Amino acid sequence: MALMHLTVIPLGTVSPSVGEYVADMQIILEKSGFPYKLTDMGTIVEGSSKELLVLAAKLSELPFNKGIQRVVTQINLDDRRDKKAALGDKILSVAARLTQEGRG
Amino acid sequence: MALMHLTVIPLGTVSPSVGEYVADMQIILEKSGFPYKLTDMGTIVEGSSKELLVLAAKLSELPFNKGIQRVVTQINLDDRRDKKAALGDKILSVAARLTQEGRG
Amino acid sequence: MALMHLTVIPLGTVSPSVGEYVADMQIILEKSGFPYKLTDMGTIVEGSSKELLVLAAKLSELPFNKGIQRVVTQINLDDRRDKKAALGDKILSVAARLTQEGRG
Amino acid sequence: MALMHLTVIPLGTVSPSVGEYVADMQIILEKSGFPYKLTDMGTIVEGSSKELLVLAAKLSELPFNKGIQRVVTQINLDDRRDKKAALGDKILSVAARLTQEGRG
Repeated sequence: MALMHLTVIPLGTVSPSVGEYVADMQIILEKSGFPYKLTDMGTIVEGSSKELLVLAAKLSELPFNKGIQRVVTQINLDDRRDKKAALGDKILSVAARLTQEGRG
Repeated sequence: MALMHLTVIPLGTVSPSVGEYVADMQIILEKSGFPYKLTDMGTIVEGSSKELLVLAAKLSELPFNKGIQRVVTQINLDDRRDKKAALGDKILSVAARLTQEGRG
Repeated sequence: MALMHLTVIPLGTVSPSVGEYVADMQIILEKSGFPYKLTDMGTIVEGSSKELLVLAAKLSELPFNKGIQRVVTQINLDDRRDKKAALGDKILSVAARLTQEGRG
Repeated sequence: MALMHLTVIPLGTVSPSVGEYVADMQIILEKSGFPYKLTDMGTIVEGSSKELLVLAAKLSELPFNKGIQRVVTQINLDDRRDKKAALGDKILSVAARLTQEGRG
C-alpha cells in the first residue's frame, strides 16, 4: 500500500494565490473514493501506487481546463509492502514511540 | 513568512522502518520553538525561510549521529510576502472557499 | 509536453549504495522509447504527463522485484502547453539569455 | 559530501516563462565557487549540506528582489559520508555497472 503526497502548482497565474485550483482538486479527490488528507503543503492520498499515479495525472490536468498554460506537479510516493501503512498510522506510531521512550 | 515541508530519509538501514529517526527529529523540533506539524509524509514547519533552512541542516544531520552513512532530505519551501501564511491557514482558506461556492 | 524528473529510492537496503536499482531503471527507460537523461540526482524523461506517470509506476515497482519492501519515489512534472519544451531546450534558453544580456 | 538538486519557482508571474529567474540564479552560482550543473529540471550543486542550504536560502530569495510575492523552492539533498560523491560520479558509476553487466 502506498501514500502519495501531491502538490499541483499552476504557473503564470496573475495572482500568487492558487486556492481555487486546490479547491478544484478536492472535488475530484472526494469523488475518487481514496482516503485523503489536505495539509498546508499538499494533499496526502492512500491507495496502490498505480492507482495513485493515475489519480495524479487527473489532478495535474485540472488547471489547464481553466486556461493555465504551465503546471508543475510534485509527487512523493511512499510504497511499502512489509506492513499496512494507512493514512494516520505513521503519526500514531511516532507518538507511541516517543511516549514509550519517555520522550513524548 | 514561509512554510517548510521536510522529509529526512536514512539510506542503508537494515529495516525499512525509519520511525526512530522521525522521533529524533521531533525532539529537535520541540526545542526549536517553531510551530510545526507532523504528517504522514513529512513535517511542516513555520518560520522565515532562512531560519527554516538552518533548522533543516540540523535535522538532516541527525541520522549520521546513529551511524547512518547516507541521508536523503527533501525540502519544500513555500515563502510568501504578500500575506501571512501560518500553519493551518491554507486548509481553512480552501474549506471556506468550498463552502462559499456551495461545493464543500 | 512534459518533462518528468524522477528518483526511485529503495529503503532497507543493507548498503547505502543503490546503483544497481538505477541501472535496472535504465534498461526500462531504453525500451520505453522516450527521450531521457540520467543526472546525478535523478532521471529526466520527456513525454506527455499521462504517459510519464504510467512509466513512473513501472519504474517505482522495480526494486520490489528484488526483495525490497519499501520504495520512496519522487516525481516532479513540468507540463507546459504554450510551447514545446523538449529535453535540452531550457538549458539552451538560459545560456542564450545570459549571452544576450552580456552576463554569460 | 552532498549533492543538492534545487528548483526555485516564482508564483504570480504574468507569463508561464521563468527563464530570467533561472538566469539570475546562475550568476550567484558562478560566484559561489561550488561545482554546479544546470539541468532541464533544476540545478545540481556539490558541497557540504550546511553550505548548500545557506546557498539555497540565498537563491530562493532572488525573485523577491524583482517584485515577486511568492516563491516555491524544492530542494533535494543527497548527503553521503561513506564515500566521495562528486558531481558526475553517479552517472559514471551507473554506466560502468551496465557495461560490466553486459547491459549497457
